[in-house]
Amino acid sequence: MPSAAGKGQERGRDSMEPPPADDHAKERYGVSSMIQSQEKPERVLVKIKDLTTEKADEVIWVRGRIHTSRAKGKQCFLVLRQQQFNVQALVAVGDHASKQMVKFAANINKESIVDVEGIVRKVHQKIGGCTQQDVELHIQRIYVISLAEPRLPLQLDDAVRPEVEGEEDGRATVNQDTRLDNRVIDLRTSTSQAVFRLQSGICQLFRETLIHKGFVEIQTPKIISAASEGGANVFTVSYFKSSAYLAQSPQLYKQMCICADFEKVFCIGPVFRAEDSNTHRHLTEFVGLDIEMSFNYHYHEVVDEIADTLVQIFKGLQERFQTEIQTVNKQFPCEPFKFLEPTLRLEYREAVAMLKEAGVEMGDEEDLSTPNEKLLGRLVKEKYDTDFYILDKYPLAVRPFYTMPDPVNPKISNSYDMFMRGEEILSGAQRIHDPQLLTERAQHHGIDLEKIKAYIDSFRFGAPPHAGGGIGLERVTMLYLGLHNVRQTSMFPRDPKRLTP
Amino acid sequence: MPSAAGKGQERGRDSMEPPPADDHAKERYGVSSMIQSQEKPERVLVKIKDLTTEKADEVIWVRGRIHTSRAKGKQCFLVLRQQQFNVQALVAVGDHASKQMVKFAANINKESIVDVEGIVRKVHQKIGGCTQQDVELHIQRIYVISLAEPRLPLQLDDAVRPEVEGEEDGRATVNQDTRLDNRVIDLRTSTSQAVFRLQSGICQLFRETLIHKGFVEIQTPKIISAASEGGANVFTVSYFKSSAYLAQSPQLYKQMCICADFEKVFCIGPVFRAEDSNTHRHLTEFVGLDIEMSFNYHYHEVVDEIADTLVQIFKGLQERFQTEIQTVNKQFPCEPFKFLEPTLRLEYREAVAMLKEAGVEMGDEEDLSTPNEKLLGRLVKEKYDTDFYILDKYPLAVRPFYTMPDPVNPKISNSYDMFMRGEEILSGAQRIHDPQLLTERAQHHGIDLEKIKAYIDSFRFGAPPHAGGGIGLERVTMLYLGLHNVRQTSMFPRDPKRLTP
Repeated sequence: MPSAAGKGQERGRDSMEPPPADDHAKERYGVSSMIQSQEKPERVLVKIKDLTTEKADEVIWVRGRIHTSRAKGKQCFLVLRQQQFNVQALVAVGDHASKQMVKFAANINKESIVDVEGIVRKVHQKIGGCTQQDVELHIQRIYVISLAEPRLPLQLDDAVRPEVEGEEDGRATVNQDTRLDNRVIDLRTSTSQAVFRLQSGICQLFRETLIHKGFVEIQTPKIISAASEGGANVFTVSYFKSSAYLAQSPQLYKQMCICADFEKVFCIGPVFRAEDSNTHRHLTEFVGLDIEMSFNYHYHEVVDEIADTLVQIFKGLQERFQTEIQTVNKQFPCEPFKFLEPTLRLEYREAVAMLKEAGVEMGDEEDLSTPNEKLLGRLVKEKYDTDFYILDKYPLAVRPFYTMPDPVNPKISNSYDMFMRGEEILSGAQRIHDPQLLTERAQHHGIDLEKIKAYIDSFRFGAPPHAGGGIGLERVTMLYLGLHNVRQTSMFPRDPKRLTP
Repeated sequence: MPSAAGKGQERGRDSMEPPPADDHAKERYGVSSMIQSQEKPERVLVKIKDLTTEKADEVIWVRGRIHTSRAKGKQCFLVLRQQQFNVQALVAVGDHASKQMVKFAANINKESIVDVEGIVRKVHQKIGGCTQQDVELHIQRIYVISLAEPRLPLQLDDAVRPEVEGEEDGRATVNQDTRLDNRVIDLRTSTSQAVFRLQSGICQLFRETLIHKGFVEIQTPKIISAASEGGANVFTVSYFKSSAYLAQSPQLYKQMCICADFEKVFCIGPVFRAEDSNTHRHLTEFVGLDIEMSFNYHYHEVVDEIADTLVQIFKGLQERFQTEIQTVNKQFPCEPFKFLEPTLRLEYREAVAMLKEAGVEMGDEEDLSTPNEKLLGRLVKEKYDTDFYILDKYPLAVRPFYTMPDPVNPKISNSYDMFMRGEEILSGAQRIHDPQLLTERAQHHGIDLEKIKAYIDSFRFGAPPHAGGGIGLERVTMLYLGLHNVRQTSMFPRDPKRLTP
């Protein structure tokens, strides 16, 4: 293959000697020139997951990574990998391979990408370490498409080892910073592949359900002129000769869409919080699944729609992502996620009573601490056998200024959180749609009215009653799979200490 | 209805007198207390679009906005609106209404939201100004749910008037700044409702098509530590005690996902450009529909997938959004969007030849100016009868450093743009997947290697050949509908001069 750069043929070759002239298999292996779209060959590349006994005795081409290699006398065993699938392959000295070719194959660095031609052969004993257990590939040609450097910053086998096993028998695992520093490699593990394919599924199920319910997807701006909610925890952006802020939530824009008659809207997008929280569940940038909906007479109309949307997601994951769930479970064992239909809805005062009964000392208008949230999750699980529930009617004092007060009890509000495995994944409320009451509540919270003028003005020309909420995508993924850190479910997490890669 | 705030009953009443005691209809109208979720009535609210002759003589409840009202002797005609649907309603003095009630109805400010009980009556002559032409509603009860202020900053009827008509007969239209300053009202027009419902459809069709093709949705960070591509036109963010940047595209992250074996990925998210461009098609924040895909031997495998995705979007819009297209056409008349299957692909040199033939003077390695792009669009339309085409093999000199050079001609590259109605909507390329060549090209472009180290390092552990591209959502919406300014297709547009609402 010709190469305009003129160096393709040699690229990365330093560790790999060229074939000697007297090698009878010298055309059968080597380092390909860099693929620059030189040609459009007719060649079909078979997927590793499709290598089954149905293909026995066929000669096929496959592209995969060298997952492991082991030379043994006149042969070399390779494991070729494609995402979560792998197959054993073998180069053995004979008609189709020389001693040099076997040596060449054995010397290819792990994680390199190779094109391989081989015969699919049934095996008599199942191959334990591979997903394709009933066949192996007898290699006739092998070309390096992209050569990996020899020293990997982490080993994929270490990265999928369950932590407990590692502690017990002293075998290596990989710590979180090493993973995140080398995310491109860490994301190649079967666990990461499963986590993020399932996360893609959550987004898809969320939208499918809402579009079916008549919602419209909206796009809201992330650069905003005024920090809402008093301006705490907000990132500042330089904006030409002035400055601006990064939106801490799309809420104000969702509400404007409601005032603009879109009736039921959702959006998926980044949410920015300049909070110096270094915990297992806080990120400075995360993905919000946001819903806002006008209702007729009671905000429970909205609560029911949101809860049903989450239930449809849980069901969809069970049905369509069983393989991914099981793959993650191998490394991170966990009970299947349980939920009820309809979703359990408790009032805040009931939760406080349950906690007090369990020995917790707290006031009726006090917010839930993280340990109390967790404890409440366990109490609810014991009593109702569900990992998902709604807590309704929070104290007004612990909610933002735009939260609608309860019509009867001025100490409580028409607001709710939703929980998975004892951790909050959604916060929401009926919003005040009346500009006069909104002004009063903002003043009560000491918010500069000038800064939220555009927001309040949105309600001056007729505003339907409405409610909504925002879901944290990374938290839903983490808690559904029973993982322990939100950095496991963010591809490139951002926290006060991490901005790379 | 009781109200905790204690003021609900009076709220917004100032302009509306309470009913006098001797009014026989005094229970049949008024301003409702603010809906605070006081109760869950069994009442069914019928949608205006469902008010047809099938419902004739039924007594129903409906919630809508007062679109217009006109008092005439002992009766008052209202037009009630819900999104793009509206119906005529009538209050007339009689058993169900008093003189005071008619006056009350006539005095409700336009754009207020009302709950109305009425009998659906067939009409003998079609009602021209309404979408529900065969029925009208005889009102028996009317309550204000949310009162609009008396002076609207713009009139909805003016806002949907075709510009030409306005100029010809002197009737008012609404200028763009007034629209954008009062976006919540401008978005209520039938045109805006149609534009943004169709835009929601574009996103849905994009994802449906790609998920069907086996793509995985990813979420990429928007706050990044280093400005790629040399650092021009990038917004700076304060990040705790340090600073960071807003991503100008998700490209580097899409590519990392390819290096992490996700094979085919897409994302939808905000893209930030600190460009001081005040044109009809530039925004400082827009929504990118991004695709990245590894391929086997030739980047045209990717080009074909992207082009087919756009074709599926165009077809889906034709099939599912005909009503919206026609609604927009009423205000902005335009030829239906034409495309070919398979998509027309021209080489850059062919385009230059066509332009030269048409009298344009330009060099072979010169980029297309905006007027030349437009002209080329017209020439292509004349010759091939398509509004959508691909321009392939751009001069290497006008493309970013990571663009793969052509394998034979070092002056051209494996890169492409896609056009709709003569304007660019996508830019893409085969990316360099070899760290050594990437380093050389970055140096050639004078880019600080230290700043893109993490990016280049992503390719050191085996990288598949890959290509991709980014589509501007607002541009696709604008050009598909034949609109003239990208601010018409961004709900809350951001440009160098506009950051609000």
